[in-house]
Amino acid sequence: MTYYELNQEQVCSYLIQAGVFIPEADLEVNEVGDGNLNFVYRARDAKTGKSVIVKQAPPYIRVIGESWPLTTDRMRIEADALEIQNRFAPGLVPGLIHRDSEMALEVIEDLSHLAVMRYGTIRMKRYPRFADHISTFMANMAFYTSDLYLSSREKKLLVKQFINPELCKLVEDFTFTDPYYDCSNNIINPELRPYLEKVFWRKTDLRLEASKLRYKYLTEAESLLHGDLHTGSILANEHETRVFDSEFAFVGPSAFDVGVLVGNILINYVSWIGKSYSEVEIRRYRDFLLDMINEICLLYEQKFRAHWDLDARDIVASIPGFQDFYFAKSFPDVVGYAAIVMIRRMHGIAHNVDVDEIEDLERRRDVQIAVLELAEEIMLTRKEFTEIHELTELVKRRLY
Amino acid sequence: MTYYELNQEQVCSYLIQAGVFIPEADLEVNEVGDGNLNFVYRARDAKTGKSVIVKQAPPYIRVIGESWPLTTDRMRIEADALEIQNRFAPGLVPGLIHRDSEMALEVIEDLSHLAVMRYGTIRMKRYPRFADHISTFMANMAFYTSDLYLSSREKKLLVKQFINPELCKLVEDFTFTDPYYDCSNNIINPELRPYLEKVFWRKTDLRLEASKLRYKYLTEAESLLHGDLHTGSILANEHETRVFDSEFAFVGPSAFDVGVLVGNILINYVSWIGKSYSEVEIRRYRDFLLDMINEICLLYEQKFRAHWDLDARDIVASIPGFQDFYFAKSFPDVVGYAAIVMIRRMHGIAHNVDVDEIEDLERRRDVQIAVLELAEEIMLTRKEFTEIHELTELVKRRLY
Repeated sequence: MTYYELNQEQVCSYLIQAGVFIPEADLEVNEVGDGNLNFVYRARDAKTGKSVIVKQAPPYIRVIGESWPLTTDRMRIEADALEIQNRFAPGLVPGLIHRDSEMALEVIEDLSHLAVMRYGTIRMKRYPRFADHISTFMANMAFYTSDLYLSSREKKLLVKQFINPELCKLVEDFTFTDPYYDCSNNIINPELRPYLEKVFWRKTDLRLEASKLRYKYLTEAESLLHGDLHTGSILANEHETRVFDSEFAFVGPSAFDVGVLVGNILINYVSWIGKSYSEVEIRRYRDFLLDMINEICLLYEQKFRAHWDLDARDIVASIPGFQDFYFAKSFPDVVGYAAIVMIRRMHGIAHNVDVDEIEDLERRRDVQIAVLELAEEIMLTRKEFTEIHELTELVKRRLY
Repeated sequence: MTYYELNQEQVCSYLIQAGVFIPEADLEVNEVGDGNLNFVYRARDAKTGKSVIVKQAPPYIRVIGESWPLTTDRMRIEADALEIQNRFAPGLVPGLIHRDSEMALEVIEDLSHLAVMRYGTIRMKRYPRFADHISTFMANMAFYTSDLYLSSREKKLLVKQFINPELCKLVEDFTFTDPYYDCSNNIINPELRPYLEKVFWRKTDLRLEASKLRYKYLTEAESLLHGDLHTGSILANEHETRVFDSEFAFVGPSAFDVGVLVGNILINYVSWIGKSYSEVEIRRYRDFLLDMINEICLLYEQKFRAHWDLDARDIVASIPGFQDFYFAKSFPDVVGYAAIVMIRRMHGIAHNVDVDEIEDLERRRDVQIAVLELAEEIMLTRKEFTEIHELTELVKRRLY
């Protein structure tokens, strides 16, 4: 079967033909995608109540159209990643019901009872189980897909399987490159432009540090990453957490996912200076956010070390000092990637609603500058950090 | 065509069938391989004098036999590497005349007018052009196969093309792992064993540093490496230099090839304490060796930087400070890999004739211990080195 773009009606017949539903099913199909890249449908059998999500990747970026082609291989990558995530982090990603690489399509578990976490955090929603869940996801994936656990051969075949040039290129450009100069891809708050031109784009030291982190992103093949682990890639409620949208998956520096997540939470932390909540409300939520960051990072390391002690098969596992070396090497990169993502989400091609929902452009600019200045400080001092409390205390000292 | 092992007669008919020689050729074929892995034949047309080298990789390690299987894909890797080396370092590798991945075979330029450099260096032969040639080879390959030059996509496809699990595993084990404990793969001078047991294998700090360098070898995909660049992989005379045997090629840390070469030269440097030459002769040759190491490393960096200034296409090229960062990061790894290879060649699975030609086992042991102690010192202090003179001066202070 070769690729064709499904319309809503064809989704029904496809699902029945693929055996996902029986021919007698009374299917309702709705497009539910707010995704930038793909078509996403929800299909529900009115008779039984059974429902699934269908994702299909067109050979272009959906929100832009056919003028920006993008490989459909991204759906093969996403489904491959989902299989591995289901193996090493079961219950923390959607179940994979059916996949079809020719059609650039996957059918996954319907998780409509959960909401995208970003929309909760901009309304001060709390997620008491999140730090525990996401640290399990990240530690399991980072450890069990690394050379510490896999055989040398398995690891190299994993690198090969997840060679993902087109999607990685988007990150290389949009995240590490474009925000550091006046690139036409950037989407810039006009009120922010003078700061960028007179201050930010002249910071060559910052750009150098971004380049070092970009080079690591390009060359350090440590673990299979989600590759875009922000709160918009997470469905959650008080009890449950699911990570989705793994099309950016590749084998890269293990610090990347952790850093991206921490950076996104810090954007939310800063964003409250632009919004109408009481000081007490803001402080309480900020305390929650910093506690969450601390917990995520501490649990991540704790769980990673526990896997290492229990399951490491590589010879280095037994070398005294290597585990400490690994984390000492990795932690400044976590902080660095957090800063990288804070910067790119202010005036790069994709923003966070945390900040962009502030309609007054001057107030939005003030938030953006506060994020950029905080990111700069933590980027330039990242090698001095040895544990997460030092970072969160710095954040609190600067802004509370 | 599927694989079959050529005998001497079949080499003739194969070469004619493949169009390497005309049917009227009067071919003489001799086996010339002293290679450990492959069958190597020289075929010469008595009528015209034209000759070529035929290399075929059997599905096992030739010197061991069928009991140690090894992928014939290594010949595909070698020929792929040779094509790229011929492109970026023409005249410094054999020409590739014909390749046949099904038959795990390549036909390359006959370089019988040159000799393996190792056999020259153990007889105090000098190679006045070598530093210039090999620094060109290493700088060209390291730069033009890196993210600094290639597009992100080209680089990732290069990584994929050179996924080389079986050969890399040999290096991971034989080079980085086995020499640090009493592994049955090791071949140990019985006179050296007490030192290994009572001293060397108890050095946990050394083993930790070896593990860090091994982890870099496993995870840092910077440039396409030769992967086994010792003086036994080099054909040379006073005027000419050719690098061969690239079956260990993969995309790894750019410091690796440089370090392996420097380490092999340092083994030769130390080896003279076991041999009957006059003090003056030894000092002169040692001066030549250290000058050569200095020149190789300085020219390597000079040429790499010149390529960078001229041809870097990646955005980081323009960032002030990134080039210095690259070399500051890389140089301690060069020193580290030099130490790694010095150690593994003393009591690992494969030794250097520089030391093993010393027949008196006690004198050989003294040389081996001197190499191991020198390697230990430079490994543990490698982060203090910022340029090659510091290393060669240390070597001279210890032993001259």
